[in-house]
Amino acid sequence: MSDQGSPIWSAAEESAMRRALELAASPGVPTGPNPRVGCVLLDDEGRTVAEGHHRGAGTAHAEADALALAGDRARGTTAVVTLEPCNHTGRTGPCAQALVAAGVRRVVHAQSDPNPVAAGGGDTLRAAGIEVVGGLLADDARELNRVWTFAVEKGRPFVTWKFAATLDGRSAAADGTSRWVSGTAARRDTHRLRALADTMLVGTRTVEVDDPRLTVRDAHDRPLPHQPLRAVMGLRDLAPDRRVLDDQAETVHLRTRDPREALQALRERDRQHVFLEGGPTLAAAFLREGLVDEVVAYVAPFLLGAGQQAVADLGITTIADAWRPRVVDLTVLEPVVDGEEPNIRLTLEPHREDH
Amino acid sequence: MSDQGSPIWSAAEESAMRRALELAASPGVPTGPNPRVGCVLLDDEGRTVAEGHHRGAGTAHAEADALALAGDRARGTTAVVTLEPCNHTGRTGPCAQALVAAGVRRVVHAQSDPNPVAAGGGDTLRAAGIEVVGGLLADDARELNRVWTFAVEKGRPFVTWKFAATLDGRSAAADGTSRWVSGTAARRDTHRLRALADTMLVGTRTVEVDDPRLTVRDAHDRPLPHQPLRAVMGLRDLAPDRRVLDDQAETVHLRTRDPREALQALRERDRQHVFLEGGPTLAAAFLREGLVDEVVAYVAPFLLGAGQQAVADLGITTIADAWRPRVVDLTVLEPVVDGEEPNIRLTLEPHREDH
Ligand SMILES: NC(=O)c1ccc[n+]([C@@H]2O[C@H](COP(=O)([O-])OP(=O)(O)OC[C@H]3O[C@@H](n4cnc5c(N)ncnc54)[C@H](OP(=O)(O)O)[C@@H]3O)[C@@H](O)[C@H]2O)c1
Ligand SMILES: NC(=O)c1ccc[n+]([C@@H]2O[C@H](COP(=O)([O-])OP(=O)(O)OC[C@H]3O[C@@H](n4cnc5c(N)ncnc54)[C@H](OP(=O)(O)O)[C@@H]3O)[C@@H](O)[C@H]2O)c1
Repeated sequence: MSDQGSPIWSAAEESAMRRALELAASPGVPTGPNPRVGCVLLDDEGRTVAEGHHRGAGTAHAEADALALAGDRARGTTAVVTLEPCNHTGRTGPCAQALVAAGVRRVVHAQSDPNPVAAGGGDTLRAAGIEVVGGLLADDARELNRVWTFAVEKGRPFVTWKFAATLDGRSAAADGTSRWVSGTAARRDTHRLRALADTMLVGTRTVEVDDPRLTVRDAHDRPLPHQPLRAVMGLRDLAPDRRVLDDQAETVHLRTRDPREALQALRERDRQHVFLEGGPTLAAAFLREGLVDEVVAYVAPFLLGAGQQAVADLGITTIADAWRPRVVDLTVLEPVVDGEEPNIRLTLEPHREDH
Repeated sequence: MSDQGSPIWSAAEESAMRRALELAASPGVPTGPNPRVGCVLLDDEGRTVAEGHHRGAGTAHAEADALALAGDRARGTTAVVTLEPCNHTGRTGPCAQALVAAGVRRVVHAQSDPNPVAAGGGDTLRAAGIEVVGGLLADDARELNRVWTFAVEKGRPFVTWKFAATLDGRSAAADGTSRWVSGTAARRDTHRLRALADTMLVGTRTVEVDDPRLTVRDAHDRPLPHQPLRAVMGLRDLAPDRRVLDDQAETVHLRTRDPREALQALRERDRQHVFLEGGPTLAAAFLREGLVDEVVAYVAPFLLGAGQQAVADLGITTIADAWRPRVVDLTVLEPVVDGEEPNIRLTLEPHREDH
């Protein structure tokens, strides 16, 4: 980060940044299109003047939150903030201007604005004579907004493909029955992950065959108050009695078979994280295009010997071409119900070169 | 074991039994058709007079081993032995007679002779006026000779079915290539398990297609000195150039398609533990007949999307009839070679009612 010999931030700034990261990750911040951001204002002696954090779309940005609390005491402070202050006027004014107006002397930020086209507020701040230093705990800050960063950098939503299979790779028996391939613990875990995404995506055939609700529900099968968007992809019409068309959540029908086009349409709706739940045909289309950024696979330790394949043809004909991702996490989900067996959850990421 | 209120064995006998179990499990005892047995002779005060254990077929039984060491001091002792003394004259004389002849006063054993037809030596000992008590730490003793006990009780070898599959249940790519589905750690682990069995079994087609060596090899691919029997099952002839027909180990061709008949033939050769390595067709035949006693499945975390199924049709058509075994063990095999990913080993056992 620095090409000088001496550190470009003080110990007080570093500990303020840790605090700002903590603030950014405060529980209760709803997932939405905005990044999580925290801000701490420090006086000359490195003492905290005010803290702030962003609480979701439509509310004050972290910097504004802290400035409001500090009032006149903001003058001459150092703003320690987890993300480079913004430069654009959204629903709230640009933060760079607000920091200038408040008389802040110095800004230390973690992550730089990941937007590859529009620049962040660093230059605006510098032009106003404010000292700006970036990169302090930047990796932690990126990790905090992993999906948001990905979506801004790549200009498309991050795609998590989830599938559940038996030990022999089946997702349903020969007669189509599949209740339940996964155990109760794995199904609950799926709902937990669904809730972290802002969009659920399936193919038209899954809607036709399974008629899923595609809602996020608690352990008592009650829908949570906040529901991701339900997206169905494919050219054919959906029968009007399908449960995805009920009023439990918003639903969009993407009339395309092109994964890039579908992601583009979702991006235009401010979607950042697509939870692709199948079926195998649709998932294979995304995989073939290199548009799967993460796989969550649940393995149930039993055998069917026949029935639907959990993973459809990927165009791979020889073992050397197998799709070999990195194992990011491997967790045994112990049964939560008597008589069930443990399931395994694997989280996989494609290697860079596959991407 | 006892219907009286007071214990039927002393603390000294119990600790002697733990020692006898330890002796029985001594390293270096070659796997063979005989059970592992340990014996401790105690005097009146509960002090050890001599210890013994069995060192494999053709060598002295544990009791004879201890008696030989004790000589005259055996008179009046209590023999603490992990298995009910034998009554039959094998390559060495019956132990019950030897204990009587040595003037042993009392016998405390763990496991009773599991042979459902021929009785053990307990009655012979009692008829000679010796006090006999059984059942002390019997479960530990059974566990020590799990496979031997199974084979004696059921009159057939114990069958471990091993398979390796990708996360989507494939054992080879569409063009037949399968080098390697499992990682290095999993392949080494397979050799370790092969070495614990006395027989390896495959179908004629696996020999035809894969031409496996079916030997137990070390990490440098060198065959171990002791090799299990190689058994190939099926009606068709084996081409004389097949590697299973080399001189690295003994091979038998079982010209049958009936799993029970094959196990019978192996039992007649004193086989106790069959390591069934496939292919899928043969394994399915054993599974359908309820002749799989343990499954060892290796899962490699990558996808093929097409190719050979690791598990063939089991006649299951609906999810309620899935083959749902108990998960006895689940181990993550960390990679031992750079660039590989962890594999998962699952050890499964059918539920009693499936058996
Ligand atoms: N194990 C699991 O986790 C899991 C999850 C979900 C579903 N499932 C199972 O999967 C089954 C349905 O899967 P499926 O594979 O048959 O259907 P699917 O993937 O849900 O839908 C396939 C349909 O999507 C449309 N589509 C959109 N983009 C496409 C593209 N690029 N390429 C091809 N088709 C595209 C096509 O319909 P149009 O003709 O409308 O264009 C196609 O027929 C159900 O039986 C369900 O039980 C399993
Ligand atoms: N993933 C793994 O762990 C693994 C392990 C081993 C093999 N494989 C793969 O499996 C493939 C071969 O498997 P496969 O299923 O085709 O062949 P297989 O199970 O090795 O052999 C099938 C043959 O066994 C004979 N057989 C004996 N008893 C039978 C019975 N009860 N029912 C049916 N057949 C019986 C039949 O031949 P006859 O006509 O001679 O009677 C039959 O054609 C190879 O490609 C190999 O790569 C994978």
